[in-house]
Amino acid sequence: MTAEQASVSEREQKILGIIETARAKRAKFGDPHVTMAHGAGGKATQNMIEGLFVPAFGGRLAQLADAGELDIDGVTLALSTDAYVVKPLRFPGGSIGELAVNGTVNDLAVSGARARALSISLVLEEGLAAEQLRAETDAIASAAAAAGVQVIAGDTKVVERTRAEGMYICSTGLGRRDPRATLSPASLVPGDRILLSGSIGEHGMAIMLARGEFELAAAIESDTRSLWPAVDGLLGAAGKDLHCMRDATRGGVASVLNELARASSVAMYVRESAVPVKPAVAAAAEILGLDPLYVANEGKLLAFVAPHAAEDALAALRTVAGGEQAAEIGEVRGQPPGMVLLETGFGGRRVLDQLVGDPLPRIC
Amino acid sequence: MTAEQASVSEREQKILGIIETARAKRAKFGDPHVTMAHGAGGKATQNMIEGLFVPAFGGRLAQLADAGELDIDGVTLALSTDAYVVKPLRFPGGSIGELAVNGTVNDLAVSGARARALSISLVLEEGLAAEQLRAETDAIASAAAAAGVQVIAGDTKVVERTRAEGMYICSTGLGRRDPRATLSPASLVPGDRILLSGSIGEHGMAIMLARGEFELAAAIESDTRSLWPAVDGLLGAAGKDLHCMRDATRGGVASVLNELARASSVAMYVRESAVPVKPAVAAAAEILGLDPLYVANEGKLLAFVAPHAAEDALAALRTVAGGEQAAEIGEVRGQPPGMVLLETGFGGRRVLDQLVGDPLPRIC
Repeated sequence: MTAEQASVSEREQKILGIIETARAKRAKFGDPHVTMAHGAGGKATQNMIEGLFVPAFGGRLAQLADAGELDIDGVTLALSTDAYVVKPLRFPGGSIGELAVNGTVNDLAVSGARARALSISLVLEEGLAAEQLRAETDAIASAAAAAGVQVIAGDTKVVERTRAEGMYICSTGLGRRDPRATLSPASLVPGDRILLSGSIGEHGMAIMLARGEFELAAAIESDTRSLWPAVDGLLGAAGKDLHCMRDATRGGVASVLNELARASSVAMYVRESAVPVKPAVAAAAEILGLDPLYVANEGKLLAFVAPHAAEDALAALRTVAGGEQAAEIGEVRGQPPGMVLLETGFGGRRVLDQLVGDPLPRIC
Repeated sequence: MTAEQASVSEREQKILGIIETARAKRAKFGDPHVTMAHGAGGKATQNMIEGLFVPAFGGRLAQLADAGELDIDGVTLALSTDAYVVKPLRFPGGSIGELAVNGTVNDLAVSGARARALSISLVLEEGLAAEQLRAETDAIASAAAAAGVQVIAGDTKVVERTRAEGMYICSTGLGRRDPRATLSPASLVPGDRILLSGSIGEHGMAIMLARGEFELAAAIESDTRSLWPAVDGLLGAAGKDLHCMRDATRGGVASVLNELARASSVAMYVRESAVPVKPAVAAAAEILGLDPLYVANEGKLLAFVAPHAAEDALAALRTVAGGEQAAEIGEVRGQPPGMVLLETGFGGRRVLDQLVGDPLPRIC
């Protein structure tokens, strides 16, 4: 028995073994209808992707990465797409147009590709004020300029009143894989350190509060920003020792950790006390009964780095704007595969499971 | 006075001159709200693109082509995106999933690029039957297989009941420009022959009838299909003599001709009698008071070819499945720039103007 296995008691092992067996079963899309949970980035989303889309589209989609890769004439390209249905369209710290640029730029970035071009498709609701359309057009243009990416293609459709909510945006990003990047969601190995690029939960909480459904006012702004500078720093500092990155959007840090633990058949051990959370976010989350680890971010990434490169990688993250609070929050272990375990502030340990249902719909 | 100018009477010249001057004014997006017309592909759409999107995004978008181009490491790539909001989701001859593949593949094809990879973003309505989602997933997969393109990235969002209508799909295609292609929307020159790859109006009429709003039954199927084989044939037959291609989707043949006449500052002369229209489409269009020239197609293209290459190009089109009825329907002339003129069956001539409003909303 290794020291690592010994860190989990026999009883725990047994329970975890049962959960793991259940989990290893092929994901199935067996729901009779689409529910909000299918859009939440948690268990239902994963079942839909693995049970429906991967069998249908196969091939490269089966890698379940944030961006698909393709070789054309020896150049490795990355393509990533996202639909944005955030409500409200504008919120403290950002807007749907800004998200549509940064979110897609970030999916490419964590795949090791710098975005070079974007396409934007708009689905507009009849009756949308021209001012709002203009504001989002401007938001897209300035976020694209800030991220150093060009909008080179677009499309617009209009649907009748109520058949959309103001607007939905779909953006697709094209980039070239950075030659320094050798990333894969299945490349995590026991011992890897888990780095988090900053404080969590700000985007999701900002959206919740902006909806005005709660009698709660707090100065929380979305963290939306391009993550390319952070990725660039990490690639420079860690190179091949950087095994994987993910941006922690829908479903938050907990969902990313669960997805990767399954994909790599490893366990994740996270120290709750090491996870940076701003006091306002922590307070609002507690009042609303939400765990910040499941709340969406739009400018934070998780990086998995070989132990000997972790210190340099963390230092690189901290020099980037928005990365000042970057922290090492845990490590990858071998057992029990597919599980995420949280070491709580009280010295206890609990399973940080996949999200079930959707506590925060229409967050991005 | 050239023979060409002589073909338009002095009075006509004067009237057309006035219209042209009005048209040459910078397009302006001055509407207070978004209307269905902004999604129709006609005048309102063009004002929105030229008055709002081009000033904001500038650069390559200003070329107003079906696909944006980008050079990465010496490889010329083409990127194209479209949102699909067709109603109903399934209709004779196709479905939204099939459209989402073929429509985007075709935008790349007419830009001279063969689609290599697709991304698919879904906006699903809560409550959508799983069967419908599965059917469209299968439709996407089989249309992609037929078109020889891989789905390599995707995203799914869910919105509350009524906030979409079943599903919207956004697809983005990536391709490499074919080295034989030297196309540009501004490269039309007087003398170019206008080729049409087959009979028109089937997609739009199939959708209208499928909605069941009219007491009209006719066996009309959508013409949705990949246009790459037709483009491949044209490039092989005409090479550099192929000046421009467009697929005649929203707004139909008339809208494409108007857009290009403006972009190239040329006139288009079209012989109505040469335009192939199936009897069932002609009959249904007459009853509904629609002109098939403005009705959407999803598997037809217009090609503009130098006169000496027109015969070979037409022959190539006719050998391709779906192109049996391809025809030369008119020619490009110098005067009056920006105008499309239709020579009617009765020997008369009328202006085939830009579409105003949206006679057929949610057609694709």
